[in-house]
Amino acid sequence: MNRLHIITALAVAVACLFPSGSQAVETVSSPSGTIRLAFDVKGGGVPVYQVFFKNKTAIKESRLGLELDSENASHQFYESGSGSEHVDKSSLYNGFTLAKAETSTHDETWRPVWGEESSIRNHYNELAVTLNQAKNDRYIVIRFRVYDDGVGLRYEFPQQKNLNYFVIKEEHTQFAMTGDHMAWWIPGDYDTQEYEYTRSRLSQIRSLFDKAVTPNSSQHQFSKTGVQTSLQMKTDDGLYINLHEAALLDYSCMSLNLDDKNMIFESWLTPDAQGKKGYMQTPCHSPWRTIQIADDARDILASRLILNLNEPCKIEDTSWIHPVKYMGVWWEMITGKSTWSYTNAVNSVKLGITDYSKLQPNHTHGANNANVRRYIDFAAANGFDELLIEGWNEGWEDWFGNSKDYVFDFVTPYPDFDLKALNDYAHSKGIKLMMHHETSSSVRNYERHLDTAYTLMNRYGYDAVKSGYVGNIIPRGEYHYGQWMVNHYHYAVTEAAKHHIMVNGHEAVRPTGLCRTWPNMVGNESARGTEYQAFGGTQPGHTAILPFTRLQGGPMDYTPGIFEMDLSTFTSNKSKVLSTLCGQLALYVTLYSPLQMAADMPEHYEKYRDAFQFIKDVAVDWDKSLYLEAEPMEYITIARKAKNSDDWYVGNVTGKSDFNSTVALNFLDKGRQYEATIYADGPKANYLTNPQSYTVTRKKVNAKTVLKLHSVAGGGYAISIKPLK
Amino acid sequence: MNRLHIITALAVAVACLFPSGSQAVETVSSPSGTIRLAFDVKGGGVPVYQVFFKNKTAIKESRLGLELDSENASHQFYESGSGSEHVDKSSLYNGFTLAKAETSTHDETWRPVWGEESSIRNHYNELAVTLNQAKNDRYIVIRFRVYDDGVGLRYEFPQQKNLNYFVIKEEHTQFAMTGDHMAWWIPGDYDTQEYEYTRSRLSQIRSLFDKAVTPNSSQHQFSKTGVQTSLQMKTDDGLYINLHEAALLDYSCMSLNLDDKNMIFESWLTPDAQGKKGYMQTPCHSPWRTIQIADDARDILASRLILNLNEPCKIEDTSWIHPVKYMGVWWEMITGKSTWSYTNAVNSVKLGITDYSKLQPNHTHGANNANVRRYIDFAAANGFDELLIEGWNEGWEDWFGNSKDYVFDFVTPYPDFDLKALNDYAHSKGIKLMMHHETSSSVRNYERHLDTAYTLMNRYGYDAVKSGYVGNIIPRGEYHYGQWMVNHYHYAVTEAAKHHIMVNGHEAVRPTGLCRTWPNMVGNESARGTEYQAFGGTQPGHTAILPFTRLQGGPMDYTPGIFEMDLSTFTSNKSKVLSTLCGQLALYVTLYSPLQMAADMPEHYEKYRDAFQFIKDVAVDWDKSLYLEAEPMEYITIARKAKNSDDWYVGNVTGKSDFNSTVALNFLDKGRQYEATIYADGPKANYLTNPQSYTVTRKKVNAKTVLKLHSVAGGGYAISIKPLK
Repeated sequence: MNRLHIITALAVAVACLFPSGSQAVETVSSPSGTIRLAFDVKGGGVPVYQVFFKNKTAIKESRLGLELDSENASHQFYESGSGSEHVDKSSLYNGFTLAKAETSTHDETWRPVWGEESSIRNHYNELAVTLNQAKNDRYIVIRFRVYDDGVGLRYEFPQQKNLNYFVIKEEHTQFAMTGDHMAWWIPGDYDTQEYEYTRSRLSQIRSLFDKAVTPNSSQHQFSKTGVQTSLQMKTDDGLYINLHEAALLDYSCMSLNLDDKNMIFESWLTPDAQGKKGYMQTPCHSPWRTIQIADDARDILASRLILNLNEPCKIEDTSWIHPVKYMGVWWEMITGKSTWSYTNAVNSVKLGITDYSKLQPNHTHGANNANVRRYIDFAAANGFDELLIEGWNEGWEDWFGNSKDYVFDFVTPYPDFDLKALNDYAHSKGIKLMMHHETSSSVRNYERHLDTAYTLMNRYGYDAVKSGYVGNIIPRGEYHYGQWMVNHYHYAVTEAAKHHIMVNGHEAVRPTGLCRTWPNMVGNESARGTEYQAFGGTQPGHTAILPFTRLQGGPMDYTPGIFEMDLSTFTSNKSKVLSTLCGQLALYVTLYSPLQMAADMPEHYEKYRDAFQFIKDVAVDWDKSLYLEAEPMEYITIARKAKNSDDWYVGNVTGKSDFNSTVALNFLDKGRQYEATIYADGPKANYLTNPQSYTVTRKKVNAKTVLKLHSVAGGGYAISIKPLK
Repeated sequence: MNRLHIITALAVAVACLFPSGSQAVETVSSPSGTIRLAFDVKGGGVPVYQVFFKNKTAIKESRLGLELDSENASHQFYESGSGSEHVDKSSLYNGFTLAKAETSTHDETWRPVWGEESSIRNHYNELAVTLNQAKNDRYIVIRFRVYDDGVGLRYEFPQQKNLNYFVIKEEHTQFAMTGDHMAWWIPGDYDTQEYEYTRSRLSQIRSLFDKAVTPNSSQHQFSKTGVQTSLQMKTDDGLYINLHEAALLDYSCMSLNLDDKNMIFESWLTPDAQGKKGYMQTPCHSPWRTIQIADDARDILASRLILNLNEPCKIEDTSWIHPVKYMGVWWEMITGKSTWSYTNAVNSVKLGITDYSKLQPNHTHGANNANVRRYIDFAAANGFDELLIEGWNEGWEDWFGNSKDYVFDFVTPYPDFDLKALNDYAHSKGIKLMMHHETSSSVRNYERHLDTAYTLMNRYGYDAVKSGYVGNIIPRGEYHYGQWMVNHYHYAVTEAAKHHIMVNGHEAVRPTGLCRTWPNMVGNESARGTEYQAFGGTQPGHTAILPFTRLQGGPMDYTPGIFEMDLSTFTSNKSKVLSTLCGQLALYVTLYSPLQMAADMPEHYEKYRDAFQFIKDVAVDWDKSLYLEAEPMEYITIARKAKNSDDWYVGNVTGKSDFNSTVALNFLDKGRQYEATIYADGPKANYLTNPQSYTVTRKKVNAKTVLKLHSVAGGGYAISIKPLK
């Protein structure tokens, strides 16, 4: 077949949207027609696309393409056929002609192992354009999938004589905005997403950038207009646009750099130690670049675009994967009440040489046998599945900030942590311990010990691990979000699957829906979590933006459930948790995760047993989710039906303002009576001065009930709704 | 104890060798007094040393010290006590005062698992100076060991409050020469030692440098006066000086950079991907920097300094470690007669996806069942221990030059290589197969598969592996000789020991005597080996310099024994092996290794069965070695007594000139009669035009016999001497 001029008969829609100079225009619409995408090759052989939402432009004409590393592509400049631009072997961004355009329709419904709903429809129209670059005698494919809730596009590099191995210098995918939109953004960074969000016009990013950068254990910004995905925006005419990526595998993580004169975002990949941005071998493809569009903020939350663009589950037997509600010997270390380390007698540890049995204990070590048993007792008595224990293993005395290679071995417990006895004790009480692998970002070291560490978990009955990547990456010069580390995180998850281990990776690259393919990836951090409430606090509104941004890619181990907001009541920590108690309860509904922690300490839950009942009751896996009220960073109200149950849970969180919520319970079974237990901010609740003011109200409800509830700033409410017999 | 002014009572010799301004002078002499070392702290608190050989200066006053990375050492400039130089926290090279000087004597004899002799005396006097750096409130120790054959010195960094973790910017150890010596050098390079040696004055290095750099699969020079160790020199008054290092562990490999105005060498460490040169955690120390000195070239060859400066064997049960004489399915690929790859149908392999069973074989694949059986038959029939097979595993079609990460899995054989059947067949014939792990320098990938690969070796009965590191290192930006890779090679060897596997690492960092500590490290390449004879040739003299340089650190898998010098007789390769046949035989004696290959193919050995007899006979492990005649790059004659045997073997190699050798057999048992079989260059032998001319002569000899033999340029002789019954 001659690739040059075949326009396949499958094309469902062709329209001439571009002015003269175009070679061809291909368009494809979403199943309902809400979203339409147009593709063209412009002067100089430059591929471009546009996106329309309800016939209004959502993404203006935007270039597509990649630049290859010149060291790996010999310079052969020549005039392109139709323009004046130079084309050389480093270009995969111009000199193209449209060779083929194929469209197709796809409609399936799949069932996630766990999730916000028990079945997900994946319905899109697809356009795949084959682009020939004649002078280099090579071609690429750009594939577009157009959904009713947005667009995915990716580059595909078929195996061919003149495109086998190549190195990416930069990807130049543009997203041209139609105006100076409002945006909720965090600074683009190669190493961390643990920032608070800034709400500003696009044009204000540059001036607000430095203020938005707060300290982190590892961080590296690249541009004063660089931001991370998922990026939530809102146009002045009420369109919600979200840019992200899906299925990030063996490629470096994409940030966005804004041309703030023209309001054009362009992809900016994370480099490696040598500044290169990707090592590719055909056949291969980029991750999907995603554009979610809606004129109702709730539709962004309801979108399954990112999951749908990922591959189906690759684990055949998923019976060992299960949602987990857990507690942890953790918050007491985060707040400074106890320590991860066992001794103060040394500040330099050499594993296998340092003999802990001969060192004076510091008596502040949290992961000691007695304390762990106390947590096991409480967690088991209150129906939790697992108990995380951090600081159980040798090496914490100098684990951080030293660029230390052999920092942990992941198998050797401290003298006061009896690995076998504590697991036995937990199992006798019906719960499991959760493993903790802090790598200190010494990744070679972790990989050297990974199989042994997972094998130890199997031996003692751990089935889940929280892994951590604090500090700068070793191999030195690599970044948390580069291809090298993306490859590593995937390796850790797939090796874990072989051992039937669930993974909750902290400080790893932000998720992109890979949990569809590898559902043992039950959690990630990859954003500013509850711990920052003990590091000076996080402003209200943070949890009302996360579902629009960070959670688009997959669940977050946010670790909610703090009941004692004033840390000075039990430590010397002066931080205050900037949330009401009910604002904490709400998160079990509003921040979806199959892995939910009750992060506070038993003694604090004992003080508020009536409120704690909600955490005990709330489900962590769902049949259905309804997004009732939403505006980024201001409020979110979600109702969810527990999986394989008739119970419903409703949660509302607020931002910096009070919020009057109206919830019609018309999602309940008609004609059926329920009892609702409503955990709401007290009338005088205040996240700064009176956070523990709340009411617990029980009332009979049915599908006709409309609840009107008031949440204070930094607050929220939580409701459990159970059918009456 | 106050460290400031203690001069220990142990000091064996103190002499005032330095002019005024000195704080103190410490000297220590070798056991026989041949070599004397003086240490002082000069103006500005700069540590210096000098070395004398038979009371003549061998190393002029030379500075010692290190520079730490400033990012890891906050700048606190201040005036040092006694000079005008600035001292800051990045300095470990000035601002010192001598706090303590301790001397001691050490004399032991140890038995290597294998070696040039069955017992080795380790006899030295030691001086350890403690140097205080008052303003930084820290101290270091410099330890000197003075032998009759040279000096070792190293930096020691005790654990202390102000010296815990640090990063090395550069080590500034100087070796100040007394003149413009003659040197045999190869270019300093972070990635390869596979160069021919240049003989020149030190002052000529700069002008000859570019010519000395020949292409390699991975190479990176750093200075036009940079050279590698071990560096052999000769002074105009006949002193042989050799600079190298011993016990290179968890530190980057040292090259030497010459200040060619003042003839001062200074250490130049290999950087990492970020340009840093070492990540240290106290207590720790540098490798030993070594200076071997003799007034007879033979004494350099006889020196055991490098081995002696290494730690004793760390493997408790060494019964599984044994010398190996082996053949290989190798030379036929090197010469181009056959291929490592299985198919020409693809030039891009994805392991686990590429289905070789469906690909057309190229029928040039060397490691096929029939061919391997042929080699097994021949090797077994001729008394070899093992047979190496390269190209047995999937991935060779695109293994090189692509910066490919997942290039090999080290366990999956090609369809025409029956792993089990071939091992079974070999074992039935009394030999083992030798494993081959080419990593293509994708080191993360190798480490991920290492345990599985070694486990497979155990399962099938392999006990030795040849590993390879061709091409640029992945993690990208790291070098073959940086700390990262030094750490890796050590990891591969120590993990192998757990599996009772012997390692022969090619393209790895040049050895520094670590085989004393880890005697399962039976070989290394780390120099230009026989393969280059098929890549255009290597000039005569190369094998007459290697024992002075490369072999100082440990055995080399040089792969001698080529009998067919004209490759065009069996391939299209136009290269000629620049050696006579007897020059090849000699190498089994002159190039010591417990791992000796007969590198040529069976059909070539069949043609010269009488000469091949020497390869069959010659031992690979020794009770005693005598260095009879030697001059760098010109000639070497060595006699060795086979271990646990009364047989002797003598070898002689020449350089670019003919050589008349006179060998008095006075090392034979007095009064005992022996039969000598002498394999000598024929009268008209010529390494270019008539390399296969040789004579085999048998004669009765005894301790009074003096043999006079003639070797042609590029030639040599070999003698086996066995007692008559």
